[in-house]
Amino acid sequence: MKQLEDLQAIISDAVQKLDFPGYPAKLYEPITYILSLGGKRMRPALLLMACDLFDGNLDAAIPPALAIEIFHNFTLMHDDIMDNAPLRRGRTTVHEKWNQNVGILSGDVMLIEGYKLMMQVEDRLLRTILDIFNNTAVGVCEGQQVDMEFEVRNDVKIDEYINMIRLKTAVVLGGALKIGALIGGAGLSDAKLLSSFGEHLGIAFQLQDDILDIYGDPEKFGKQVGGDIISNKKTYLLIKALELADTRQKKELDQWLDREQFDHTEKVAAVTAIYNSLDVRQYAEEEMQAYADKAFAALDAINLPEEHKQYLHDFADGLLVREN
Amino acid sequence: MKQLEDLQAIISDAVQKLDFPGYPAKLYEPITYILSLGGKRMRPALLLMACDLFDGNLDAAIPPALAIEIFHNFTLMHDDIMDNAPLRRGRTTVHEKWNQNVGILSGDVMLIEGYKLMMQVEDRLLRTILDIFNNTAVGVCEGQQVDMEFEVRNDVKIDEYINMIRLKTAVVLGGALKIGALIGGAGLSDAKLLSSFGEHLGIAFQLQDDILDIYGDPEKFGKQVGGDIISNKKTYLLIKALELADTRQKKELDQWLDREQFDHTEKVAAVTAIYNSLDVRQYAEEEMQAYADKAFAALDAINLPEEHKQYLHDFADGLLVREN
Repeated sequence: MKQLEDLQAIISDAVQKLDFPGYPAKLYEPITYILSLGGKRMRPALLLMACDLFDGNLDAAIPPALAIEIFHNFTLMHDDIMDNAPLRRGRTTVHEKWNQNVGILSGDVMLIEGYKLMMQVEDRLLRTILDIFNNTAVGVCEGQQVDMEFEVRNDVKIDEYINMIRLKTAVVLGGALKIGALIGGAGLSDAKLLSSFGEHLGIAFQLQDDILDIYGDPEKFGKQVGGDIISNKKTYLLIKALELADTRQKKELDQWLDREQFDHTEKVAAVTAIYNSLDVRQYAEEEMQAYADKAFAALDAINLPEEHKQYLHDFADGLLVREN
Repeated sequence: MKQLEDLQAIISDAVQKLDFPGYPAKLYEPITYILSLGGKRMRPALLLMACDLFDGNLDAAIPPALAIEIFHNFTLMHDDIMDNAPLRRGRTTVHEKWNQNVGILSGDVMLIEGYKLMMQVEDRLLRTILDIFNNTAVGVCEGQQVDMEFEVRNDVKIDEYINMIRLKTAVVLGGALKIGALIGGAGLSDAKLLSSFGEHLGIAFQLQDDILDIYGDPEKFGKQVGGDIISNKKTYLLIKALELADTRQKKELDQWLDREQFDHTEKVAAVTAIYNSLDVRQYAEEEMQAYADKAFAALDAINLPEEHKQYLHDFADGLLVREN
């Protein structure tokens, strides 16, 4: 089994070798640009990992892995326009560096380039893999739409939230693993189990992210403590707190959510105090553990050598116990 | 052979029966909305026509025809954002009716829905047809980018212009015919010839459109005379005039292009006078005829019964001699 870092390095090399047409420059340069901003290449690495788990030929998995990475960057390019984001990984976003129309159109062509790369699979897998890719892509669009709607709603329910993070984040992890497994020679049932592992792990990971925003060690976590609180992000913690709060707590939370001028530290402290009094961290950790358990249950059922399952188990443990 | 109107009616029915998910509503309602705005359904009708020409099963061609129509409407939805257009076919555009983010994201999911429909072909044709669809889709994006760049350039060459209209308009006509022919049972070489017919006819049609803007009968043509002149659109006529103009004429044209305040009738009359003195209409008609001839040459070479070729010939004649 190759290590995750080796798989990430394979992807980075392959991304660098991607060669898009020179004309029209404003259509293709932004693709090379956004791909050059880096990132952990986690999604394509998972695709390769799945192929490797079933002792498949990694070379055959590289174009579909690139397809997943290009698809992911297409969503980033369009999301950055929708979020009006000036920066992506510390560098100017495409719509800021060029203009919005360039961002829309380059993103469009990236989605098509993703299909072209995804089609570089054997004929016998073509339809199955494209079906997975279609469903994954639709899921991400649905998740993004629901997420945008959450921004202007204060009545989001936990079920809706879990479904949103499933669509926006987890489905593509499951899809990448499923595609990689099939290319590696897995049967459909094992591929589905691996996909289920990835999807549940993705949800657990996102819930952990919500928890770490407040309870993580800022030095190790590398983010501002309470960033989600400051921006009123509808996280599991906030939604649960709004659900559990009594009248007085609900009123205080609503006041913080409505306030446009506030001291960041004061807001984070006040909202965290409400979270603490309602035990929302514990609820979140239980929910996260429930999804991790579902992921491990799917993993247990896969027909793979024990050491390969252990590899995936260790990978999941590594993701879920980030030093917080 | 079915008549064009019958094929258009089949498409209209099938479009009405399309059923997208209800959730998230803002992702899918705009798709139903833009499709409901109508249009001539020419691209999908051409796909059905090509299938019918080779005595294929029209039912099998309907999902790919819908794919072409949805793809076309995806490009309209995104183009309307890029052009900041308030109206489409006399109705509010999607980004105006909802908002820009809805227009971006619904467009994205339309492209994916297009792939899903296009994949509803026999396994033996799947790869070939998706390759054609990919190339068509990339061509349209390239054409749109080049067209946007032309807006801020005054040195566009005729070759560049022809290539732009080929990419933006003609390639999708050729692609639709090629896909329809293959579904209808045509061999690859006949499908390519039919595609070449469609692509060249598309270029000729666009050149005719440029001519009719000024020289067409406004009553029969249904558009304002000289609309392209008023908006400084880089048409064949303008590009050719800039190429042929002497110093004085060039200066006069440039002045009209630069002027922000002007009397519409005066500008149209002045620019048309320059066009007339340079015989640009004649050049445009010759170029249009040259592309029509190429279309007919491709048609002649196709292995089809004479009456089917005559049908296509009549269809092309009908397109190219609009009552002007």
